[in-house]
Amino acid sequence: MRKPVVGVMGGADVSEDVIDLARRLGTLIAQRGWVLLNGGRNAGVMAASAAGARQAGGTVIGILPDRDTRAASPDLDYAIVTGLGDARNLINVLSSDVVIACPGGAGTLSEVALAAKNAKPLILLNFDPGRALDPYQDTAPVFSVTTPEEAVEEAATLLERT
Amino acid sequence: MRKPVVGVMGGADVSEDVIDLARRLGTLIAQRGWVLLNGGRNAGVMAASAAGARQAGGTVIGILPDRDTRAASPDLDYAIVTGLGDARNLINVLSSDVVIACPGGAGTLSEVALAAKNAKPLILLNFDPGRALDPYQDTAPVFSVTTPEEAVEEAATLLERT
Amino acid sequence: MRKPVVGVMGGADVSEDVIDLARRLGTLIAQRGWVLLNGGRNAGVMAASAAGARQAGGTVIGILPDRDTRAASPDLDYAIVTGLGDARNLINVLSSDVVIACPGGAGTLSEVALAAKNAKPLILLNFDPGRALDPYQDTAPVFSVTTPEEAVEEAATLLERT
Amino acid sequence: MRKPVVGVMGGADVSEDVIDLARRLGTLIAQRGWVLLNGGRNAGVMAASAAGARQAGGTVIGILPDRDTRAASPDLDYAIVTGLGDARNLINVLSSDVVIACPGGAGTLSEVALAAKNAKPLILLNFDPGRALDPYQDTAPVFSVTTPEEAVEEAATLLERT
Repeated sequence: MRKPVVGVMGGADVSEDVIDLARRLGTLIAQRGWVLLNGGRNAGVMAASAAGARQAGGTVIGILPDRDTRAASPDLDYAIVTGLGDARNLINVLSSDVVIACPGGAGTLSEVALAAKNAKPLILLNFDPGRALDPYQDTAPVFSVTTPEEAVEEAATLLERT
Repeated sequence: MRKPVVGVMGGADVSEDVIDLARRLGTLIAQRGWVLLNGGRNAGVMAASAAGARQAGGTVIGILPDRDTRAASPDLDYAIVTGLGDARNLINVLSSDVVIACPGGAGTLSEVALAAKNAKPLILLNFDPGRALDPYQDTAPVFSVTTPEEAVEEAATLLERT
Repeated sequence: MRKPVVGVMGGADVSEDVIDLARRLGTLIAQRGWVLLNGGRNAGVMAASAAGARQAGGTVIGILPDRDTRAASPDLDYAIVTGLGDARNLINVLSSDVVIACPGGAGTLSEVALAAKNAKPLILLNFDPGRALDPYQDTAPVFSVTTPEEAVEEAATLLERT
Repeated sequence: MRKPVVGVMGGADVSEDVIDLARRLGTLIAQRGWVLLNGGRNAGVMAASAAGARQAGGTVIGILPDRDTRAASPDLDYAIVTGLGDARNLINVLSSDVVIACPGGAGTLSEVALAAKNAKPLILLNFDPGRALDPYQDTAPVFSVTTPEEAVEEAATLLERT
């Protein structure tokens, strides 16, 4: 049996508060024994969540948009090199058992949208996607939380169901 | 010189009102002499905008998510077969000089997000993406309109600048 | 009904003889009334086949690996911008009704391989793929020819069957 | 520091001899402490190399072409779900520090070609790619071997250089 994989999405250019939140989220995911998967780059939510998980002894997979690992976070255990640019966002979503979206911009929004489209369990951690996902509440329930602790609690419930 | 390419995004499962709007938009794009590019399938905004453009003598390119053309709209002049599923949404955006988003769901939202991320001129035709794109107003201005006529007028202005 | 699409593959860095061959092939494809599809860049077989088709009044679609059109051949009617790097080779193959491979290197070899894998009619114009495709003769017959005239003759026969 | 990643390519439909060879190769890779990366499916060289590595206590990453994990080998530690079909072959190659090609068909040939194109160290284990890669001997030396032991010995030498 493979370990559960929790995808952590979020911006590359975010405030210190969001960095702290992403690091804490990474630590909590590692403490649960789950694999953390993210976009792999050494910036923002990607770097912070990877660092938080790594420090807690967790495993981190990064799905890089680039053609090599030069921009990879130093805290990845496994670097998947796609060379696909933003098209790799679909892989982030499909490879996760649950997706948690931290604050971010258009890249994060695209991942949130693809998660809903692919009926992937989705937790919004202080991320507002607007009204476009409202029609998906039946096929892909979206949960909104405000702390990493709540996010991980919700993820645990969702993982039990899958 | 290649003709301007206007990407029309929007849902596969939409109301009759949206179908009418998409058909009218397709016709207006064709009348301007622009190429219409969309997701290529025989459903919703894709099929309606293609039909509207075709009837007005325009040219339509469809970027199909599938591995063959079985689900293609009959009104495509050119069918690009990607086999990439939702990852083809990036191609829709990058291949368009201007993107117009009609009402739709998560797929459309992902395209709107990728347009903003890639600084592609973006016109929202009765599509509400929430607040996630607000920070992009500097790099990728987003225009909101309520009729196909306004959308095409705005597209003409944007195409003059590119 | 869409026009037949003939994909022309081949190297970006080739001899003058191959450039001449590709240009002639492009012209013959245009004269048949078929659409020519290739990798879109302004180099080698791509540029030469596009130029040959354009000069004969044909239509050319280029599937670019890049994120924009800066490296596009000036002879494309339609530029599909994928941003996918070499992963766009699959799109070249799937979007073609028949694939003709001119001399080229590893990129061309990958397209020849993907054509065989996807049972796409394949004509090798002075291109030697080795023995790896031998087992595919049942599902995807491969035809070897030595002139553009023979290639187009063979393509006509194959297109009648599809 | 991330562990070295050795990509194992090869056919889904192969003889018992090739299955044995792939299993032994997987075991040898695991015994070296390297990560084994392959196409992830529960068939042929993919399944056999994963099983061989797993039994020896190694780590296996599978890059699946599908949109879910239903066709995944049971011996994967990590399943990367791409939904990209054959376009995922590029990811297999780019994510590997060294690529070893076992006997296979057109899919394997496409991976061998993409490895050469991307200057990735490449070891051919009883795989004949024809002459198309000859021009790459300067930029991407290709090594031909006939046993898993030789392949792993060659990989060790190549990994020391990277």
